[in-house]
Amino acid sequence: MESIRWDGGSLHLLDQRRLPNEMVWLTIREWSEVAQAITDMVVRGAPAIAITAAYGLALAIQQGADRETAAHTLRVARPTAVNLAWAMDRMAALPDIEVEAMAIEIHEEDKAICTALGGHGAHLLSGGVLTICNTGALATGGQGTALGMVRSAIELGRSVHVYVLETRPYLQGARLTATECVADGIVATLITDGMAGALMATGKVNAVVVGCDRVAINGDTANKIGTYSLAVLASHHQIPFYVAMPMSTLDPNTATGADIPIEQRPAHEVHTLAGVQIAPSGVDTWNPAFDVTPATLIDGWVTEHGLWHPTGSPALDSESHKS
Amino acid sequence: MESIRWDGGSLHLLDQRRLPNEMVWLTIREWSEVAQAITDMVVRGAPAIAITAAYGLALAIQQGADRETAAHTLRVARPTAVNLAWAMDRMAALPDIEVEAMAIEIHEEDKAICTALGGHGAHLLSGGVLTICNTGALATGGQGTALGMVRSAIELGRSVHVYVLETRPYLQGARLTATECVADGIVATLITDGMAGALMATGKVNAVVVGCDRVAINGDTANKIGTYSLAVLASHHQIPFYVAMPMSTLDPNTATGADIPIEQRPAHEVHTLAGVQIAPSGVDTWNPAFDVTPATLIDGWVTEHGLWHPTGSPALDSESHKS
Repeated sequence: MESIRWDGGSLHLLDQRRLPNEMVWLTIREWSEVAQAITDMVVRGAPAIAITAAYGLALAIQQGADRETAAHTLRVARPTAVNLAWAMDRMAALPDIEVEAMAIEIHEEDKAICTALGGHGAHLLSGGVLTICNTGALATGGQGTALGMVRSAIELGRSVHVYVLETRPYLQGARLTATECVADGIVATLITDGMAGALMATGKVNAVVVGCDRVAINGDTANKIGTYSLAVLASHHQIPFYVAMPMSTLDPNTATGADIPIEQRPAHEVHTLAGVQIAPSGVDTWNPAFDVTPATLIDGWVTEHGLWHPTGSPALDSESHKS
Repeated sequence: MESIRWDGGSLHLLDQRRLPNEMVWLTIREWSEVAQAITDMVVRGAPAIAITAAYGLALAIQQGADRETAAHTLRVARPTAVNLAWAMDRMAALPDIEVEAMAIEIHEEDKAICTALGGHGAHLLSGGVLTICNTGALATGGQGTALGMVRSAIELGRSVHVYVLETRPYLQGARLTATECVADGIVATLITDGMAGALMATGKVNAVVVGCDRVAINGDTANKIGTYSLAVLASHHQIPFYVAMPMSTLDPNTATGADIPIEQRPAHEVHTLAGVQIAPSGVDTWNPAFDVTPATLIDGWVTEHGLWHPTGSPALDSESHKS
């Protein structure tokens, strides 16, 4: 599966807003429509947004648009994605003629990171693998991070059954990860978030693998809300818990998880489900987008360079298990 | 709040299908409409269904309908609720003239059980109380079981803040418990099921209290799916975990949790919500209605007679804490 294609003159985006009901590709030739597509969440996932914006700038130059206006508009198309600013920064000093090549390079780099990360983590997965949110081809320029590890494991010939948490309130698991699994023929079972413990108790889960939004230098890991519960449950059931972590997500300026700010999201995401009112609007909600899992509950961080560990001495050596 | 009212000639039911969006009472004068209301889930919750059916039989007798037909139709209006058959059994041998009084007695008994149970458990709750599913006035003939304990604690003047798990896939927490809290001015915050661990980590949860569907004689407790995850998370955070258990839910014929059959529900409950497709229909699901929490993770079972314990020696003595 993939979600972003560039043909040299047009950008093709899989419209993620229409998943899981329709698989519709949009063909975009105007840079301003690229910015709008990012704002409107046609595409989401930090790496995927950065790649999309990079192609947007390439389109602006092909059209002879004002480059500075385009770069600024693309940069602010979503407020919080650090990768977006990083992609624009990388292109800022380049002559016009090199921008398209850099966009392709940013895309290829992300694809290569996913593939390398998956290669280093594949041997850790076999049998039942529980995951949360969307960490696949719909969030990145390649096969994904945590879901990319699953794909690499399957390519190695390992038998993997993915258990997908639906991931309320935004349902990235139900809407996106389940769609990727169906599209690519990955054996998958969708469950609601509250079922994780009961599923582990059946003995069907051999590993948990999740993505990450920011990792502190001590290994504390911020990821989609619900990840911390999973880590506690995995620990109770003695199931290994892995984080798929592109090195860019490790933040040398964050000492511990306590230093990671947690975005609070609006109440309507909890009051409604897929646009349907499911709770009285008068009830208060708590809606953090992320939670922090302490390093002590994590068995390994898988990166594009192999396994990382906050102590510098990986508990798991990916090479030694590979043969 | 209440959900069932009898005025001597009509049964008034709060239409739970229209919650949380509308608070509509149906007035029913035909016994056959009572059976239909049970089948259609106007009313749900095992005790509430039993009370409703008992009034249905009283209506049938007032109308001069064929009593045997009515009793049978009411008994099979829902397939699994044991309380429903139990209510019909209690009325089977009574002369017509005593049926209405017995219906009122069944209702009053359930109300009294809720009140007594709440009285025995109230002293256990203070501060943040996390709960799952609906165990309140919408499920019983009185103030509820677990949510009844919360109401009793508030009546005692204790400051309680209820955290309501939305309880996917059926959303009884969001739709029903949140509605009860808003209606009765109970301080409440609604969260998605995956947030339970992160909330406990904040230190805001002082106790977890849940209802139960069947308790084995060794204390293993079947309840709404998600309860087991909560119990593991509570144990990890050293938060006490209580079960509100009317004595009728303790099954002397069930030795351990392994003997409790778990109903599997259809996939569409996970694939959709209120007619909205939220996952590709091609993805497999696992949808158990209940899970089993081992007795070792439970700190107390609160009944209408006080605290119960499988060893016969309650770890917690409700009387000694009450002064």
